[in-house]
Amino acid sequence: MALVVQKYGGSSVADAEGLRRVARRVVATREAGHDVAVVVSAMGDTTDDLLDLTRHITDRPTARELDILLTAGERIAMSLLAMAIHEYGQPAASFTGVQAGLRTNDEYGRARIIEVSPDRIRQTLADGAVAIVAGFQGGSPEDDVTTLGRGGSDTTAVALAAALGADACEVLTDVDGMFSADPRMVPTARQLPVLSTEEALELSAHGAKVLHLRSVEYARRHGVPLHVRSSFTDLPGTWVTDDERVVARSRPETHPTQEDAMEEPLVRGLAHSRDQATVTVVNVPDVPGRAAAIFSVLSDAVTALDMIGQTHTASDTGVIDFSFALPLEDARRAATALREQQTDLGFTRVSVEERVAKLSIVGSGMRSSPEVPARLFDALSGEGITVHLISTSEIRMSVVVDESQLERAALAVHTAFDLDLELDADGIPLDGSPRALAHAGSGR
Amino acid sequence: MALVVQKYGGSSVADAEGLRRVARRVVATREAGHDVAVVVSAMGDTTDDLLDLTRHITDRPTARELDILLTAGERIAMSLLAMAIHEYGQPAASFTGVQAGLRTNDEYGRARIIEVSPDRIRQTLADGAVAIVAGFQGGSPEDDVTTLGRGGSDTTAVALAAALGADACEVLTDVDGMFSADPRMVPTARQLPVLSTEEALELSAHGAKVLHLRSVEYARRHGVPLHVRSSFTDLPGTWVTDDERVVARSRPETHPTQEDAMEEPLVRGLAHSRDQATVTVVNVPDVPGRAAAIFSVLSDAVTALDMIGQTHTASDTGVIDFSFALPLEDARRAATALREQQTDLGFTRVSVEERVAKLSIVGSGMRSSPEVPARLFDALSGEGITVHLISTSEIRMSVVVDESQLERAALAVHTAFDLDLELDADGIPLDGSPRALAHAGSGR
Repeated sequence: MALVVQKYGGSSVADAEGLRRVARRVVATREAGHDVAVVVSAMGDTTDDLLDLTRHITDRPTARELDILLTAGERIAMSLLAMAIHEYGQPAASFTGVQAGLRTNDEYGRARIIEVSPDRIRQTLADGAVAIVAGFQGGSPEDDVTTLGRGGSDTTAVALAAALGADACEVLTDVDGMFSADPRMVPTARQLPVLSTEEALELSAHGAKVLHLRSVEYARRHGVPLHVRSSFTDLPGTWVTDDERVVARSRPETHPTQEDAMEEPLVRGLAHSRDQATVTVVNVPDVPGRAAAIFSVLSDAVTALDMIGQTHTASDTGVIDFSFALPLEDARRAATALREQQTDLGFTRVSVEERVAKLSIVGSGMRSSPEVPARLFDALSGEGITVHLISTSEIRMSVVVDESQLERAALAVHTAFDLDLELDADGIPLDGSPRALAHAGSGR
Repeated sequence: MALVVQKYGGSSVADAEGLRRVARRVVATREAGHDVAVVVSAMGDTTDDLLDLTRHITDRPTARELDILLTAGERIAMSLLAMAIHEYGQPAASFTGVQAGLRTNDEYGRARIIEVSPDRIRQTLADGAVAIVAGFQGGSPEDDVTTLGRGGSDTTAVALAAALGADACEVLTDVDGMFSADPRMVPTARQLPVLSTEEALELSAHGAKVLHLRSVEYARRHGVPLHVRSSFTDLPGTWVTDDERVVARSRPETHPTQEDAMEEPLVRGLAHSRDQATVTVVNVPDVPGRAAAIFSVLSDAVTALDMIGQTHTASDTGVIDFSFALPLEDARRAATALREQQTDLGFTRVSVEERVAKLSIVGSGMRSSPEVPARLFDALSGEGITVHLISTSEIRMSVVVDESQLERAALAVHTAFDLDLELDADGIPLDGSPRALAHAGSGR
């Protein structure tokens, strides 16, 4: 018997039928002998509908009031889910973030969790009932309602799992787990049975959309094993954990042989993100403090800078080009901010290249392997693909390529790092994997 | 400068335009120098929509979960209203029932208020902001969400006004106040500038739908002056209070002359309710304890018994007929319950007469006036109307008549007690009253 926190997203509880399906799954987990705490998002488009209503009232909603408003969706979903679980014969009780003991600071709209004291949840589980908790919300020190921002329900689930000392935090979603690439782009992508938290962080940060970065960070810090799996099937999904015992447990059912699992691949998977742009600041005088001045302007204009490149166009000209990649909207803002300071900064022009995309490869095995860049560039040049920018971390390499060449690049790189699942002529995996790719997609 | 609690119903905040209209009114009250706490209901059909959703999940919703669910509507309305008030330049903050300090017992669905500790509301008002409170809801001793049942938002407003020591509790609605009869039935009905709490209680209990009985009871017990008025106009409405100072203040602007106001009319107004039925238990043996046995069966079957009549059909037969009037659904349930016990109770049959209605006259002046019954029966018999049952209280007389004769009865009785407003040929009041009857209706 284990204690499991299950998190269901808005698409899983979009309507009454979805709520009933989730209820049946919760009840099945309960009947298998486990204690279950459920974290639930708002039903389908509820939150968007509420935002829509807000726009009819004001363009500048008060942050505190907006948070009160937006948490109504989870409150509706959680109480209906409790009723549905009741209907299947299991006792259940639902709790708001405040009632569940989720204390945050008072940064409305993106509150940080300060403390989780889930006394009522513990009591509910001890009483043999299912505890349902509204995702995405908490209470400020002043007892006001706060929201945790994007991916908030995942974070609620992980934080609750950490506070309860749960054996696992299951993130139930509409895909089968995390894949070696987005299966809609790379048909031979394979599902990944296990990822280290570091790998999951890099994949999430660079385009895989299944898990929110923040919840992975939280899980890593608190040692919560995450299990990303489909809410439509009972198949195992992807475990995200550094806990060797969980890794070992997850292997037998996901890998045909123990030996397979022991091979540490160079690259675990690919992530991509579209709608990027590169910005190049041309002919920046190479004098002390000038680069700092440029990045100071940028840090005021954009939220995150990624992939910075610096090129001495010629060593004797006394000027440098700076390039960096960032999301399209940010890139436009960055260019405007730079142009406003052009006289002070002394560069000759700013060029923005749109319609580019970022492709990243991630794997703990890259750490000590000098062959990775060679194999990557080999694969890309074999397809005649130009790389605009490169950046690397310990376990990741990212390249910026033309968006039109992204798919070709992904297919070539996926093959080059031996990630392809062998398929028969009908597209069925040759390893007998029962996984349906219908719901798959690491980019969703 | 006064402290005013304003309560707006669901029809006043049905959409964004309604919310903006309410916001403008709140801001106007604030700009007139008053402190304003607002109690708001759920927007339009929100609560019905949530109930509808529930029916897709279960026929037996858990009471606790249903209360959490249903309070989402007020939470949405209150935060949007706060934003709308902001938009018109006034600071405002919204609070759930729990945040506003509304403590109740844990009878979900019909919780009773135990204590109101509106510290945060007081602080908000002291800070010069408008405080908005979600109606209809409170918190149980276990910090669970509870609802107050029908008319709950009115009760929230009155309870908050009592706890804050407010100068008035304004109930803003879609009618101009309370009338001497339902103007849709009696075109000459006049708006009532003042009612005693006792009169308002009797009118509400017997069919006037503007105020909920429970909120009037609460206001009476705590000495809160109620002001029922239209949210569409600035005209004074109907004050419900026993406070002579408020009565005196309310007179000059609502009565042409001070003298008029000093006349205590015999009857203040009429109330009616349709969908009633009379139940008659025929030939009940006149032995000790038999009547008690009958009413014991009834008290298990129905929520309220009204207008009990007892007739010795003949003094020497040793049998009695009992009659009583009650709402149609209750009557059917009562008849079934009685028939199940027919052998034990020994009566010969139960007859149910549907399609009857109840007409009541109410007025403090009736207390010491023997002429009221005479005048009432004179008016009814003049129209050839048969009375099936009668009941009286100190300040009320009610009769049950055929529903088809209700309107004629109401017109005749309204005239007989000198309640008619004099109208000119176009239906415009001759006293120059500016009141539009368009929105009027004591029966709504």
